[in-house]
Amino acid sequence: MKRIYFDHSATTKVDPEAREAMLPFLGENFGNPSSIHSFGQEAHTAVDNIRQVLADFLGSSPREIIFTGSATEANNLALKGVLESFHRCTVCGVECPEKGRIPHLIVSQIEHHAVLDTAKHLEKQGYEVTFLPVDKNGLVSPQEVKNAIKENTVLVSVMYINNEVGTVEPIAEIGEMLKAVNSERKNKNLRKVCFHTDAVQAIQYLDCRIDKLGVDLLSLTAHKFYGPKGVGALYIRQGMPLVRQMDGGWQECSLRAGTENVAGIVGMGKALEIGIRNQESGIREKIEKLRDRLIEGVLKNVPKCELTGHPQKRAPHIASFVIDGVEGESILLMLDEKGVAASSGSACTSGVLEPSHVLLAMRIPVEKTHGSLRFSLGKDNTQEEVDYVVEILPEIVAKLRKMSPFK
Amino acid sequence: MKRIYFDHSATTKVDPEAREAMLPFLGENFGNPSSIHSFGQEAHTAVDNIRQVLADFLGSSPREIIFTGSATEANNLALKGVLESFHRCTVCGVECPEKGRIPHLIVSQIEHHAVLDTAKHLEKQGYEVTFLPVDKNGLVSPQEVKNAIKENTVLVSVMYINNEVGTVEPIAEIGEMLKAVNSERKNKNLRKVCFHTDAVQAIQYLDCRIDKLGVDLLSLTAHKFYGPKGVGALYIRQGMPLVRQMDGGWQECSLRAGTENVAGIVGMGKALEIGIRNQESGIREKIEKLRDRLIEGVLKNVPKCELTGHPQKRAPHIASFVIDGVEGESILLMLDEKGVAASSGSACTSGVLEPSHVLLAMRIPVEKTHGSLRFSLGKDNTQEEVDYVVEILPEIVAKLRKMSPFK
Repeated sequence: MKRIYFDHSATTKVDPEAREAMLPFLGENFGNPSSIHSFGQEAHTAVDNIRQVLADFLGSSPREIIFTGSATEANNLALKGVLESFHRCTVCGVECPEKGRIPHLIVSQIEHHAVLDTAKHLEKQGYEVTFLPVDKNGLVSPQEVKNAIKENTVLVSVMYINNEVGTVEPIAEIGEMLKAVNSERKNKNLRKVCFHTDAVQAIQYLDCRIDKLGVDLLSLTAHKFYGPKGVGALYIRQGMPLVRQMDGGWQECSLRAGTENVAGIVGMGKALEIGIRNQESGIREKIEKLRDRLIEGVLKNVPKCELTGHPQKRAPHIASFVIDGVEGESILLMLDEKGVAASSGSACTSGVLEPSHVLLAMRIPVEKTHGSLRFSLGKDNTQEEVDYVVEILPEIVAKLRKMSPFK
Repeated sequence: MKRIYFDHSATTKVDPEAREAMLPFLGENFGNPSSIHSFGQEAHTAVDNIRQVLADFLGSSPREIIFTGSATEANNLALKGVLESFHRCTVCGVECPEKGRIPHLIVSQIEHHAVLDTAKHLEKQGYEVTFLPVDKNGLVSPQEVKNAIKENTVLVSVMYINNEVGTVEPIAEIGEMLKAVNSERKNKNLRKVCFHTDAVQAIQYLDCRIDKLGVDLLSLTAHKFYGPKGVGALYIRQGMPLVRQMDGGWQECSLRAGTENVAGIVGMGKALEIGIRNQESGIREKIEKLRDRLIEGVLKNVPKCELTGHPQKRAPHIASFVIDGVEGESILLMLDEKGVAASSGSACTSGVLEPSHVLLAMRIPVEKTHGSLRFSLGKDNTQEEVDYVVEILPEIVAKLRKMSPFK
């Protein structure tokens, strides 16, 4: 049976060229970048070369890029690192500030769990957190972000593309708004409000230049753009206050201790270079066309099925739905039997039968959220694959509805 | 020029067999272990198989193993995770306990920075920390650990093998002592004192069965035993209280969020299997013999040179010295010119000209610590390589001493 992969938002296959680039670092070039001998210096140079690749892509200085083990780690570092830098919490309470000076964080309600749960953790620790609502398409409003800002706000975190429904958030607009807000705050002698975006789903397709976006921190991970798992990065604008979360050695400008995943970093760099090349040769348009064909086909052929996420402002690769009267997980299992890999919400929540926080925030009724289904496309998908899914999905849904006790 | 690698304590070359095992997971088997479709389940199974390999090696249940991105991460998780579980610090001070109930941590003064700096971080946060002295050979005394225990002690962390001087610490004796202490404490209704060891340097050579050691937490990383960089693990005894440090998805029993480095984990498992096999075929004895030849040769041929670390209770692979009147870094550079990779202290402190905290704790005078030199051997080193180093080192030292302004 031919296997069809429509779950590129969960992870992607390492590009053969990226894998090839990794191999020497899983072989003869095995030095520890912190060692001063030539084995070490070769590894150090390799890591720094990729730092430059990322910097060129983001329009930053290489000194503003640090490598992590995942986007989750990058997101944790961004949020905890900034909040803690404004106030180190203490066990004994001696240094506790008066209530009004507790740092305040704003995140959207539809962030990935790596941001959302970090925000909840910080809230539990005593920091102030606003979980910002979104509209029915999953869109964050820059004006609402502005309205949520208080004197003690230090950080806003809004994802670039929502991983479950594909909505593209107005990052540049929020960045622009914050620029104006910060210039006013400067006159009032108030702290700058920093801006973080989790750009994990956007790297391949959208403009990620930090100055265009107006962000101070940006998270990414290799395995979402045909690089290996186990490696991510965080862009940190120079001068940003940040408390490191991993204590130990002096790696990564003392902002992230631990021996670098050299092969992984090299693989990430090569995957990014390939991604940029593909971008230039029109991969986005190809995928968008497939996505639209898929959305159209599914909506036409599956009764009582709705698109989730913004109809226009959406990621080129994400087609997401809610289907009445069926469980997303059951659809996945039956699709899998027919060789098709898809997802219901995010991969990180699989096995968890709670309704998606993203769909709930979009005010989709709980009973509908259970029928959520996401197809996320990649560079190697074909029109035939799309047509095959459009063909088999209605049968699967019909069969499941027939079996359902809630007819 | 032939290159000779004597820096296996910094990192090792991935074993070709381990690399081979990784390749499918950098290729067709690219699923995200959290995905419920077959791509995901294949990855999930691969990860769980390695969990079993580690569990068999440590004599634990696979449910007690979680994968991390490094030993540094495992050490941070162990220390912060346990301490925070006994008390969540809060910004506002509401939940702060009276002074006497602040959790207390005991670490040795010669821990790797991943433990030492984490302990310092916790101390800064308001936790109570004892930095336990060692003797002139770098040995921790179980009796002194016992003397340092207070009513509020919750964790003791002592490394298995010191990475800079190779001293093997009496982990099993400390474990035995703690068992007796904890049984007394139980009667007094006092908290259990948990026991963590950073076993990074010991995995290949020493008995790491957790019940033999009496530890509750044990850290390791693949790249020290011929596995890839970017992957580590933490053994956590069932029922241990632990606050996760990486918030996000439900991976690793909700104790470490973030997509798993599947290829890295598979490489680590294979490297461990190979290591066990090599162990059975007498690799330790071979390396010990080379180490002794190296120590003997260096001490005989280099005047004013002393062995550091315990003369008998030392790692099979570490030969470490202090050499009067020379800078360790200068020796390294000249050795490197002759194709030999060695180290001065730990790789994580390279570029940092502070004297080694390990040597200082062993009460070696500061001026001597600057001449520290470490050779760490591996499975592929030969007697010829050892003899070559023994031959060239005296010339290098003589040359440097001649150049030194401090004659």
